[in-house]
Amino acid sequence: MSNVFSKERLLQDVEKCKAYPAIDPKVLANRLDELAAIGKTSDGGVTRFVYTDEEKQAKELFKKWIGEAGLTVTEDPAGNIFARYEGTDSNLPVVMTGSHIDSVPNGGAFDGPLGCLSSLMAIEAMIQQKEKPKRSIEFVIFVNEEGSRFKNGIFGSRAMMGEVDYEELEAHHDDVGVTVAEAMRQQGLTPENIGENPRKPEDIYAFLELHIEQGKQLELNEETIGIVTGIAGPSWHTFTFYGETDHAGNTPMHMRKDTVAGAAEFILEVEKLPRQINETAVATVGKMYVYPNGTNVIAGKTAVNVDARDIHTDTLSELNERIVAKAHEIAEKRGLTVHHENPTNIPPVPVPENIQTYIKEAAIHHDLPYRHLVSGAGHDAMIVGKYVPAGMIFVPSVNGKSHSPEEFTYLSDCVDGIAVMKDVLWKLANE
Amino acid sequence: MSNVFSKERLLQDVEKCKAYPAIDPKVLANRLDELAAIGKTSDGGVTRFVYTDEEKQAKELFKKWIGEAGLTVTEDPAGNIFARYEGTDSNLPVVMTGSHIDSVPNGGAFDGPLGCLSSLMAIEAMIQQKEKPKRSIEFVIFVNEEGSRFKNGIFGSRAMMGEVDYEELEAHHDDVGVTVAEAMRQQGLTPENIGENPRKPEDIYAFLELHIEQGKQLELNEETIGIVTGIAGPSWHTFTFYGETDHAGNTPMHMRKDTVAGAAEFILEVEKLPRQINETAVATVGKMYVYPNGTNVIAGKTAVNVDARDIHTDTLSELNERIVAKAHEIAEKRGLTVHHENPTNIPPVPVPENIQTYIKEAAIHHDLPYRHLVSGAGHDAMIVGKYVPAGMIFVPSVNGKSHSPEEFTYLSDCVDGIAVMKDVLWKLANE
Repeated sequence: MSNVFSKERLLQDVEKCKAYPAIDPKVLANRLDELAAIGKTSDGGVTRFVYTDEEKQAKELFKKWIGEAGLTVTEDPAGNIFARYEGTDSNLPVVMTGSHIDSVPNGGAFDGPLGCLSSLMAIEAMIQQKEKPKRSIEFVIFVNEEGSRFKNGIFGSRAMMGEVDYEELEAHHDDVGVTVAEAMRQQGLTPENIGENPRKPEDIYAFLELHIEQGKQLELNEETIGIVTGIAGPSWHTFTFYGETDHAGNTPMHMRKDTVAGAAEFILEVEKLPRQINETAVATVGKMYVYPNGTNVIAGKTAVNVDARDIHTDTLSELNERIVAKAHEIAEKRGLTVHHENPTNIPPVPVPENIQTYIKEAAIHHDLPYRHLVSGAGHDAMIVGKYVPAGMIFVPSVNGKSHSPEEFTYLSDCVDGIAVMKDVLWKLANE
Repeated sequence: MSNVFSKERLLQDVEKCKAYPAIDPKVLANRLDELAAIGKTSDGGVTRFVYTDEEKQAKELFKKWIGEAGLTVTEDPAGNIFARYEGTDSNLPVVMTGSHIDSVPNGGAFDGPLGCLSSLMAIEAMIQQKEKPKRSIEFVIFVNEEGSRFKNGIFGSRAMMGEVDYEELEAHHDDVGVTVAEAMRQQGLTPENIGENPRKPEDIYAFLELHIEQGKQLELNEETIGIVTGIAGPSWHTFTFYGETDHAGNTPMHMRKDTVAGAAEFILEVEKLPRQINETAVATVGKMYVYPNGTNVIAGKTAVNVDARDIHTDTLSELNERIVAKAHEIAEKRGLTVHHENPTNIPPVPVPENIQTYIKEAAIHHDLPYRHLVSGAGHDAMIVGKYVPAGMIFVPSVNGKSHSPEEFTYLSDCVDGIAVMKDVLWKLANE
């Protein structure tokens, strides 16, 4: 069997699925398959960008399912979709749950859709079982979490909370020059309405999102449920080292101002620093440019991008400070200069203890092995979590793969995730 | 005054130029300026790659000057240009002299062009003074010494000696996928003819090339003429490290197979090794590529180019062996794999005593301070020197700069170099 998504591959696992009342693994498999067919690539992956016909088709499918569940669909100016399962006390702040509908280029079938389906199917199960919570539960599908088309990710959740203004819609454009605003109009939306009536934090009691882990910790430890303790805020830095461009043959080793060597020393320090600070911290150099990038030229300029993350504000700050200090220290030692930019700095979002506890209790209740872990990746929950208590449930990624056609999660793990999602929503909605 | 090339900067020095019969400093300044204008970059540097319109323009200029000197231009299948100043005995092996016409990306105005002009202007001075040598003197302009476009340097001289076959023309391509053969056809050349009728070593009595030092020894010692005792052979390596492409946020530090970090460790070792082996040895990483080169992606592949040189065969071998061993050692320690290629390995070339003596005698005759030194850079003379006696004259580089817009040599030093070039050619051609 191929290592890309297919309904057959999902259903191979159907016999292993635990039986949960009102959660049908086959329905989940069918729905994941229907969604994966929209924007399917020749590699078996999915390309489904915001404000495209593919996105529209996927939204139509969800609207159909929501309607079949007896709920009413609403849509905000950004195109985020909402459906409210009314609680016994309509005046209380709601428990909100959902994920995103878009993908990266040639991405997978689970990143986003599985979260949306988990939230919807948990609500459907309550409806089917006639379980009425105290608080209303609001299902949300966010547009444009990945940001692949316009390079402006976690967009739908930002828009919902009032963080997006019209200027952003004009400032970003896709590869063929279409701005966000133009693309919205093409989809029948009114970009001028962006930012109107954002959701008030006091109207949301909590937010809960299920997502694939996009890592290997659950798989390697044979665990099913990841209890996210915090969502790491990414800090993105660019360090540009300036030295002297010289001939590689005629410049003795002691007379060089070599920015590649300086950058190399810095990269090794960036690799060491997180472990000196916190075991949840990470820092990565995945992107760099060498100028002029010639084999026989000592490079006079090298730019190094650093992605630093942690789940605690203080340790992330410390990590960032020490990274910056190292860059300056190494530059000074080597007679280089360094220019530092820090274009992105998103604060970490810790998950409140009660949500972590509810996830753990649900896992124990269903006899599912679990692990506390960090979300190193950003998610819509990271945005909503800036304003209201937010939690995340992770399910295992096969080989840790994501953002690729090989992204896969076993059907049994998906179904276990929905069962946990339902329990936690129920507890939160009855607090 | 700016520290990049300009005719005005050259001419500031015109009054200091020694008067040599039939060598006009202003003509040299004009010609260097005309050549520097072809492929001029916004930084004031020069980008003139092989088989481009810029190269063609520069060749047309030389063809014009050669014609004005009363000589006939011929061209070989590689596009090297030749012009023969007939001696009194046409049957004797010729004395050949010249340099290259191409540049590195954003390089300088002297590396190559000054050597070509020195040889041409020495011959022009003989013609003007009606000095007829016994042996014919053959002027040559080599294409593609730097190898910047196709990563196949000292190409013109290799082609002239029959070292290039058609396979090489298909194997190398530029950054946009154009092969050498395609680029040759675009310039009206016939790549299929490559390798036909190479020059026979027995038909060349000696080869002489003038070049900028690309180092600081002459300048620091206030000397004008460098007598090259040997040319260091460059070894070019590519080490491609393979690890695992993972999400920068969701992969703990201890679970990574990060090729950028592995490459960084390797680059620091490459920087340390030469000093452990020999004080004349150098090794440089000036070029590298990271894949996929995304800020939030741990890179699964990183390619690092190493340029290693020394003037002694044994120490260069030792340096190469230890570089290769380090790459494997670091890859193994980090759970990476590494693929090694060594496309270029040129043995060091010693300069015969008689040529060194002629250069020294000419320097003394013209009262020019001189120094014996090594060429750390490879040159076309290194290739021709594998087959026939070859020598090099160096003139000072301001601040030792080359391969950069700041590359500069004072006009007076250039003119002194031409005078020495003329004397040495005359002695060799009358042996």
